[in-house]
Order: sequence, then C-alpha cells, then structure tokens
Amino acid sequence: MKSGDLVNSSALDFGDAHTPPWAMAYHYGTGLHIEVKGAPDLPREPTLPPQPWVGTKPLNLGSLHGSPPRIINAEKSEFNEDQAACGKLCIRRYEFGAEEDQEWLTLCTEEFLTGHYWALFDGHGGPAAAILAANTLHSCLRRQLEAVVEGIVTTQPPMHLSGHCVCLSDPQFVEEKGIKTKDLVIGALECAFQECDEVIGRELEASCQVGGCTALVAVFLQGKLYVANAGDSRALLVRRDEIRPLSSEFTPETERQRIQQLAFVYPELLAGEFTRLEFPRRLKGDDLGQKVLFRDHYMNGWSYKCVEKSDLKYPLIHGQGRQARLLGTLAVSRGLGDHQLRVLDTNIQLKPFLLSVPEVTVLDMDQLELQEDDVVVMATDGLWDVLSNEQVAWLVRSFLPGNRDDPHRFLELAQMLIRSTQGKEDGPTVQGQVSYDDVSVFVIPLHSQGQGGSGP
Amino acid sequence: MKSGDLVNSSALDFGDAHTPPWAMAYHYGTGLHIEVKGAPDLPREPTLPPQPWVGTKPLNLGSLHGSPPRIINAEKSEFNEDQAACGKLCIRRYEFGAEEDQEWLTLCTEEFLTGHYWALFDGHGGPAAAILAANTLHSCLRRQLEAVVEGIVTTQPPMHLSGHCVCLSDPQFVEEKGIKTKDLVIGALECAFQECDEVIGRELEASCQVGGCTALVAVFLQGKLYVANAGDSRALLVRRDEIRPLSSEFTPETERQRIQQLAFVYPELLAGEFTRLEFPRRLKGDDLGQKVLFRDHYMNGWSYKCVEKSDLKYPLIHGQGRQARLLGTLAVSRGLGDHQLRVLDTNIQLKPFLLSVPEVTVLDMDQLELQEDDVVVMATDGLWDVLSNEQVAWLVRSFLPGNRDDPHRFLELAQMLIRSTQGKEDGPTVQGQVSYDDVSVFVIPLHSQGQGGSGP
Repeated sequence: MKSGDLVNSSALDFGDAHTPPWAMAYHYGTGLHIEVKGAPDLPREPTLPPQPWVGTKPLNLGSLHGSPPRIINAEKSEFNEDQAACGKLCIRRYEFGAEEDQEWLTLCTEEFLTGHYWALFDGHGGPAAAILAANTLHSCLRRQLEAVVEGIVTTQPPMHLSGHCVCLSDPQFVEEKGIKTKDLVIGALECAFQECDEVIGRELEASCQVGGCTALVAVFLQGKLYVANAGDSRALLVRRDEIRPLSSEFTPETERQRIQQLAFVYPELLAGEFTRLEFPRRLKGDDLGQKVLFRDHYMNGWSYKCVEKSDLKYPLIHGQGRQARLLGTLAVSRGLGDHQLRVLDTNIQLKPFLLSVPEVTVLDMDQLELQEDDVVVMATDGLWDVLSNEQVAWLVRSFLPGNRDDPHRFLELAQMLIRSTQGKEDGPTVQGQVSYDDVSVFVIPLHSQGQGGSGP
Repeated sequence: MKSGDLVNSSALDFGDAHTPPWAMAYHYGTGLHIEVKGAPDLPREPTLPPQPWVGTKPLNLGSLHGSPPRIINAEKSEFNEDQAACGKLCIRRYEFGAEEDQEWLTLCTEEFLTGHYWALFDGHGGPAAAILAANTLHSCLRRQLEAVVEGIVTTQPPMHLSGHCVCLSDPQFVEEKGIKTKDLVIGALECAFQECDEVIGRELEASCQVGGCTALVAVFLQGKLYVANAGDSRALLVRRDEIRPLSSEFTPETERQRIQQLAFVYPELLAGEFTRLEFPRRLKGDDLGQKVLFRDHYMNGWSYKCVEKSDLKYPLIHGQGRQARLLGTLAVSRGLGDHQLRVLDTNIQLKPFLLSVPEVTVLDMDQLELQEDDVVVMATDGLWDVLSNEQVAWLVRSFLPGNRDDPHRFLELAQMLIRSTQGKEDGPTVQGQVSYDDVSVFVIPLHSQGQGGSGP
C-alpha cells in the first residue's frame, strides 16, 4: 500500500496555523481500510480575536493565534469506536467589579491564557460515549481552568482565590503543603474528567443510549505538558536517548487490589454471583477440596487455599493480559460513561468498580533540552497491543531523522505506526503482528521549529 | 558520651553463631538514656537439631545452624514503645502419608528450609501491641511458609499444592499469570500480617489492653531479601555506589486518596463529625463563602471551592509532614492492632481506615555484586525524622570502610546512627537535629564473610 492511499488529503492540516502541531492517523478495527483523519471543524465555537501566546517557554510553534478546540472526527463510522479531539484551549479571565464584589465577576471575552489540547477516546458498547467525550471534555476542562486561572498565573496559588488572606499565615500553610501552580492544572483535569463523566451519564440516559470510553488527554500549558489518563490508551515520550511512558494503564489486572478491596468492603455489589478471589484459571468441580493458588485483596503475592463451593463462582476479575475482564464484561477499570452498564442477564452494576478518575503526569519542558525529533506518541490500545514502547521508539527514530525536510513527516510517521499494526511494515523489531482493534495515533512534535509552523 | 556507655554488653551477641548477622541499638524517647539491646532469649521455642543452610546463594554467614527466632526485647520499659525481634526462621515440611491422602499429612520435626528474620515494631497507645507483635509475627510467618513450602521449593509453584494437575494446562495458566516462587513468600508475609493482626486484636481485647504498632520485617530466604512494611519505619539499602529504599511509608498523607475514597463510599464512618475534604489549614467562620484551596478523593492536584458550613468540621486528614493525623488521632495509616481505637469522646473507629496490609519489596541478592560494606539499615521513624537517606548513607560510608577489622563495627554503626539523632555526632551532613521519639536501628551486613560468622 502506498502512502498516498492512506491520506484523506483534504482533511489534513497538521501544519495549520490555527491548530497545535499534531499528526493523527486511525484505523477502523474491521480490517477493511485505513484512514487518516484531519481537522474539519465540527462543533466550532465562535472564533476569538488573536491573542499572543502566554507561557514561560512556548513550544516554538511560530505564530499560533486564537482558535477554539476543534473536533477532528468529521466522518463517524458505526464501526469506529475510537474518537479524537485536538485544538487550542482559550482560557478567559474573570473581571472583577469595581467593588471587588464577587457577584460582579464576569468572564472577559478575550482569551487570557492559551493551551493546547489533544485527546483520544476509545469507546466500548458503541461509539456514543466516545463521541460525547470528544465533544465535551475540552469544554469541561476550559471551564475548570477558567474557574482557577487567577491562581494559575501567580507564583504560588493563594489559599483564597481572591488573593486576600483571612489568616496572616495563609501563604505559609500553602507553602508547607507544597502546592504549586501545576497542582491547579492537575486538579482542573481531574475535576474536568468528573464533570464530563456526569455529563455523559446524563446525556446517554436522556437519549436512551449506552456505552463508555477510555480517555487519554494531553494539555500543553505554560511550558508543561500534562497527560491525564483513564483507561488503557498510552502516551509515550520518545527522544533520541530516552523512552518515557507518560501514562499508566488502568485495567482489571493493574487495579485488581482496589477492585477486590471494594468487593470486600461491599460484598453486596457482587450479589452472590461472583467470587472476589483470583485464581490462575476458572475453578471447577474437580478442584473442590484441593489446595490451589489464589490471591485476595490484601495480597500482591500468592498463596494456596482449600477450594470451597463458593470459589467455583465466576471470578470478579478473570483472565490475564488482554483477556482480563472485570465481572466478565469490561477490559478497562477506568473511563467515562457506563453508568447503566450491567453484567449480562443480571442487575450487577459495573460502575461502582469503574473510576472516572485520571492519573495525571507532568512533563516540564523547561527541564528538557528538546531536540528536533522529540515527539510524544499518543495511541489507543490497538497500537500498544502489538507494538512495545521500544518498537514504537525504534520506528520513530528510524523514520524522523531521515525526513527532516518533509513537512508531513509527523503525519507519515503516524500512518506508518498504524500500518505497522497491520503487519504491513518490514522491520527487525516488528514481527508482523496484526491488531484487529481500532487504532488511533497522535504524533506530537515537541520541538517544531521549522516544521510545525508552516503549512503544506 | 563514650561508646562504652552505650553498650548493655551482656546482652549483645550480634556475632552469635545461632542468630543471623545483625547489630541493633535503640533509644527510649524520654531523652534520658541510650541503650543497646542484645538477644537474651525470651519466649524460646524448643531448640531443633542443627540443619545445614538451604538456599541458592547464602549470605556467606559461615556455619549457621538451627535456632528458632529469638525475641530481643529483654527488658521492657514502660517508656519504650519500640520493640524488635530477630532470629532464624526454621521452616518444616509436611510429610505425605503412603496413600498421599492429605489427612495423613504431618509436620516433620526437622527443619527443611532456613530463613532469617528481623522485625521492628513501633507501638502507640502503649507498648502492648508492639510486644505482642514481636512475640507473634514470626510464628505466624513460619506457619504461613510451612503451609506452602512445597510450592516454594519448586521452579514454579504448581496450580495445586499437591503437584497433581486437574487440568493438563494448569502449568500454562500459572505461567501466563507469571507466578513465581517469590510470590508465595510475598503471599506468606501478607497473610502473616493479617493473621498477626487478628491475634493482636483478640489478645488485647481478652486482656483489656489497647494500642497498635507499625511493623517492618525483613526476611532472608533462598537468596532473596524480602522487606514487608506497614507503617512509617523504613529499610534502606546502602552500598558504595547506591542508596535504595526497600520500603515506602504509609501515613495519612501518603494514603490520603485511599482514606478519602473510603469516607466517600462510606460517609457514615465519619458520623457527621469530620469533613472528608482536605484544606491547607483548618477553616474557620471567616472563611465562609470564600473560595479556598481544597482536594477530594479523586484529586492529586488542588482546586478551589466556595466554603460551606460543613467544611468547617475537623478534617479527616489534617496537618502536614510529621504533624499529619488521621481523624486527629493517628500518625500512621497501616499497622497492627488498634481494633478498639476510637476518636476521643466519640464512637468513631479508626480501624476501617487503618490497614494491616504490608507492602512487600524483594531484593534479589543474586543480582547484586555484594561488597563488604553493603548493609541494610532498618529503623523506626525516630531515626528518619532527623536523618535523610543520604545522611544515613553518608554515615554508613564514613564509618564502615575504616573499621573493617572491628568485629563490632555493625553494632557501633547502629549506635552511632542513634547518637546522630541526639545531636551528639559531628558531621557535615548532620545538623545537630534531635529526635525525641523512640529510635531503633538494625544494621544488617549483606556480605559478612570474615565478620558475621565469628563472635566476639
């Protein structure tokens, strides 16, 4: 397959001065075709007047100007549960009334702080939750950031958002807690995930739809890249001499102890239908009375127990690796939506075990001496199921240095990564493994001087 | 204070061929005196016949022979809530009857596998729980290990302890789960902590006593050092070119999200008396209606909220650093005991928030090229409150190389570390800070050829 076949060219504008630098490709899990999506504007907000970049050390993007987040899923397919969004985050500031009376606070029309936003959502049980998340999460985040922006632009957040102390020692309390401005951005991301989850719950219920999705978000703001993850997508920093995961996966396996602990505290959540204990395989009648390997909520290690009848129930978490399932139903333990999801033919709800809480990591760009080929690769599990971090890094490092003059090189890299999941790339580290899942990839150049600023 | 003043000499036998190599010193938090404790035998089990060391790569201890764990708290003081134990773990094997009928299993009288055990317990609310733990935990651990020893001595633990497969693919299930023999030792430690906690709960209730304790345990078995920790003691590996913490601390601060999450799921645990939210300081009437910094269970970052009346309640976790308290009462969030502990003048129990679950780390000695001065320093929080890991490592590295001919050098190092918490040692990294808490220190030489085997 030639590169040209892959490009839905009209849609592609990673060099567009109105979007942050990115390149994205995705593949529908039907095995039928590979597409590359660009950024036709979907639910676009009113364009705001241009505003210079605000931040300690911008990404050297050239002259980026104001533009609201844009949703890049132009042509939804019933087969594609992966959704994505990216764009500028335009954060406005509240204006205080003359009397500094909070009732007089109004949101200015001009943007005050500018960030960039990239997000991947991998849906299950249909694309509804992923589409809602792609259309909503950036707005939740913008609101959360606007609510605390006065604290973000100070050296240290004040105890009171107004900046006025009630106790003289308030700054000391904040300092002793070690609260930095980055903690407000982390808090805003965490609150935005909660808010978005509630919105999705309400919207799906109102429209009689179902489903959930994972969420992986990267935000560039004031010289730092924040990565928030709830689910099994992954963001990976690839540099010449460094491979650094910027997220961890949340699956029934990685969160086993939290999930078992909840079932231990609240046994009624299992309605007598499941066993909380983990065994290497599903037990059967022949195992009764035998001593078999097991582990409970308080164990990272394993021990043996004498099998009783109740151990023959279906396990709360069963299977290993990609096959591990929560209550026999879900392969992830964090994400958005799924408020109505129940175990087949029962009234047992998944949601109490599912969290919408993301883990947020922070990459301080000021601490990195960025090189031209440093990128962050964000992708849904379809990529990571068949390619290791090292394989992805190898592909990135093999491709970018030789293509520095190609303005589409980040896009081509994203396409190439997708092709590698289809067993269509030759390379010493890629063993022809094939992903049958949806695959979505963002390649975000961190140092885009000379590349990112100019369009094709 | 001269070194000679410190040594309770009759009790000291770190070179005793019947105990693992160790040196221990401790200090009662009254500020009155410093003592060094040795190993007078307290609740001694019947001595077992000598048995050669079993293991893949023993610590080069010379000719260690069978001796049960010995409790080294000979002279209990009502002022000393620190307790300790160390000794050999003699693990026996079950003997199968001729018919391999499990009812015929009997515990052999001869030891089958030998380990070494060191433990520190830092009591609160009196020394009762710490004394019980020092007298009990090693027996719980021995029982747990004896129950699974057949699995421990194989290359890979079998699905069924009997070694007989019910499914032909059982070995494959175990392999896919990645279960190794070390996981059985980790599981035995975890189960032993649970069992010991139950014993302490029963014993304290039966004797109308109260209290709890932290527990830090190191076990050397089959070429690996296992460190299990529940509380705020710490084990630190110090080598010539490496400082590696072998444990993490569990305090209301480090476990804030787990604790807040429990209060979120079970609000009745707070009986309307506490607020689940964290603020930089205790709020008061003047804060009402203001937007102040806060965080909830789903947040690692911070945000602002408008203060309501319910936010003025005492916080579930309050204070920072050493002053952080769970429900205004406890400075640790994991440990043994405290089954009856309630918030002063209320019926609010601490135990649901407290876990007896340890975190276990494993140090594979086969992977280390051990040097003569490589040690593990285990100590209660009294040491770490005033000395950083780097300061302790500096003291270790300053002291050991120049004293290689001294058979008491590990003991003297332990004493010196204690003295350093009393502002009595001069050194560029020790700033004369003073600990008013109990302090207990074990120094465990990892490579003791030429030192550990021979007594004074």
